[in-house]
Amino acid sequence: MTIEVELTGTVTSPIGFSAGAVYAGIKTYGEGKLDVALLAAECVCTAAATFTRNRLHSAPIHVDRAHLTDGQAQAVVVNAGVANSSTGARGIADGYRMASLVGEKLNLRATDVLVCSTGVIGQFLPMEKIEAGVGAVQLSSASGMDFAQAIMTTDTRPKHGSVRFGPYTIGGCCKGSGMIHPNMATMLAFLTTDAPVEQSFLQRTLSAAVERSFNMVSVDGDTSPSDTAIVLANGLAGGEPIHEGTRWASAFAEGLDALCVHLAREIARDGEGATKLMDVSVRGAASDAEARQLVRELTTSYLLKSAVYGADPNWGRIVAVVGRSTVAVSEPGVSVTLCGHRVFENEGPTSFDPVAVATAMRGDAVSIEVDLGVGSGAASGWGCDLTENYVKINADYHT
Amino acid sequence: MTIEVELTGTVTSPIGFSAGAVYAGIKTYGEGKLDVALLAAECVCTAAATFTRNRLHSAPIHVDRAHLTDGQAQAVVVNAGVANSSTGARGIADGYRMASLVGEKLNLRATDVLVCSTGVIGQFLPMEKIEAGVGAVQLSSASGMDFAQAIMTTDTRPKHGSVRFGPYTIGGCCKGSGMIHPNMATMLAFLTTDAPVEQSFLQRTLSAAVERSFNMVSVDGDTSPSDTAIVLANGLAGGEPIHEGTRWASAFAEGLDALCVHLAREIARDGEGATKLMDVSVRGAASDAEARQLVRELTTSYLLKSAVYGADPNWGRIVAVVGRSTVAVSEPGVSVTLCGHRVFENEGPTSFDPVAVATAMRGDAVSIEVDLGVGSGAASGWGCDLTENYVKINADYHT
Repeated sequence: MTIEVELTGTVTSPIGFSAGAVYAGIKTYGEGKLDVALLAAECVCTAAATFTRNRLHSAPIHVDRAHLTDGQAQAVVVNAGVANSSTGARGIADGYRMASLVGEKLNLRATDVLVCSTGVIGQFLPMEKIEAGVGAVQLSSASGMDFAQAIMTTDTRPKHGSVRFGPYTIGGCCKGSGMIHPNMATMLAFLTTDAPVEQSFLQRTLSAAVERSFNMVSVDGDTSPSDTAIVLANGLAGGEPIHEGTRWASAFAEGLDALCVHLAREIARDGEGATKLMDVSVRGAASDAEARQLVRELTTSYLLKSAVYGADPNWGRIVAVVGRSTVAVSEPGVSVTLCGHRVFENEGPTSFDPVAVATAMRGDAVSIEVDLGVGSGAASGWGCDLTENYVKINADYHT
Repeated sequence: MTIEVELTGTVTSPIGFSAGAVYAGIKTYGEGKLDVALLAAECVCTAAATFTRNRLHSAPIHVDRAHLTDGQAQAVVVNAGVANSSTGARGIADGYRMASLVGEKLNLRATDVLVCSTGVIGQFLPMEKIEAGVGAVQLSSASGMDFAQAIMTTDTRPKHGSVRFGPYTIGGCCKGSGMIHPNMATMLAFLTTDAPVEQSFLQRTLSAAVERSFNMVSVDGDTSPSDTAIVLANGLAGGEPIHEGTRWASAFAEGLDALCVHLAREIARDGEGATKLMDVSVRGAASDAEARQLVRELTTSYLLKSAVYGADPNWGRIVAVVGRSTVAVSEPGVSVTLCGHRVFENEGPTSFDPVAVATAMRGDAVSIEVDLGVGSGAASGWGCDLTENYVKINADYHT
């Protein structure tokens, strides 16, 4: 069964979710943008999440880990503009306060509220603005797009979608990295479903989907201290609990995967300063883990990202990354295919037509396929080109 | 004993070495630049080398490993413009032929000739030009600077120096990465000495010096398949063989270290598109190896390199790298010092003056010191800023 992503879907596409957002004056760049957002379910949801592997993680992640110990949540509050990261004990207290404000507003237990912040590292949350913003948000089942817009920092467009299987819907949105204001590279993803998914199955499928989607995206190799993916399942579409071996288990996992991959590609395509999506596949690796490692090394190479920007069929840079990596290779078995053209095999260049490859690379997506000739390990991942604009965005705007 | 680097020194500063270079038409960018260079000693030298850890290494490295099995060499031939990498069996044959040409010219055994090539990956050496170039080179003990210039690709200046201790001299030069023509990131370093250094001691001191100097430089995190550092010791300044425990052993090791660090810093400072040297020190690490790892992670961060370019005191990017690294940290013990100003400690920002730090960062070198608060491991390393010009150099010039 192939699951199609509906591009107009949002976090309020599933039954029983509402959202809303306001401009509370926290984003200091751009006037009148939404920057405080709320997502709420009609009932307590089964919830799961994955968080950044950055050890010096942000204050909201302390709060969310505590609030998720029971595997339940009913609302998520997000602000953009200040990340509440590297803010010590005061930052953690501010995070708990943010959850309490939402609990009071919606008459929920504060422990059923999850909190996310994205923006500048090292600044304290402007709590008066947060309080006013939370107070002013109005919730509606038609406002999923407002939510997707409010969580953006300098993303150039909202990223969202939904999938359907049987009687169920999964909706989602995410933000990527726009770095006009320094220090904002946080990846946030919010997923909702009206399917009655059992908690441990929800966590396992989320973790697996994140591993294959968001964790395979790289804009610049720097991991934010705030990365978070959250899924809420309210069960309001009815039916038997979904867990391993039940009727809808594999469709749910497949749908979640498809939606996460769609959102992850959207992040890569909208990377800071990016003009192109870089679509990387590795096969023939000793293991899937080694294939994933090499995909990450390819999508973070300064030289390869620059060549993609310049539409330069510079396969030598791909071979150089393969060589410096620690993944197992069979030297005579390595091949490289660029936008569908085999450019390297048998330890040397093929007689490919550089003009044809360069022309293919001028599109808005560049595919790179590497076969390591060793085993059956495979992985895919996504990055973007490195442009002068990336440097400008990250150098010219001062803290 | 503190050893000063003499900035005017070259590979012909020690007794008994001569060099020369010609333009053989191999560099296709820039007219009339030197591109075939020869370095020769008056007698067979004790020799040692370190090579790239890129497994798909270039053809010259096959040749050099074979020619160094006896720990001896008398001459080095280098061409710039074509790297002879990813060129299969024909490339290796071309490398051996290049050594033979020099052996015939100088009446040496071909196995006492080492070969280096730097330039575009995936092109075959133009052997007629190499042959004509090798034939035309004239050797002189005053031509060390010609050698340093001929090995450049798009380095903006030659990099060289020498040190003296007791009756002995060590000379050296290197090239770094100028990437105007694609695929040239090769680091080559050539060191000469008239000290009578015993071979295994020579190899050990070279390996140790390279580990602390060239291996701690990063311009863009991509390891060339051609990186090579070679040292030749002709012993012509006389005296007893130098090895562990002898009179001059520690002075030799210290001198070689100082010269390699000087050359390594020169490479970082002249990185592609660079406007600033990034001088990174990590202390308080669990081990020297972990300190080295974090230095490398800091000098390759896109965001940190962009902030250094913009003279932005954006300490959050440093903390984010520390957090995403796998090195051991004591969270409350982490501190960050930027251009001498303590900006982060006790899990939060200090009350530093951002204007003062930004002003300090506008110089031609930016120092970054991180204390992990765990142990006594320490390391230093060097990088450069990321500029629009880096992207232009690597995107706009096509293969």
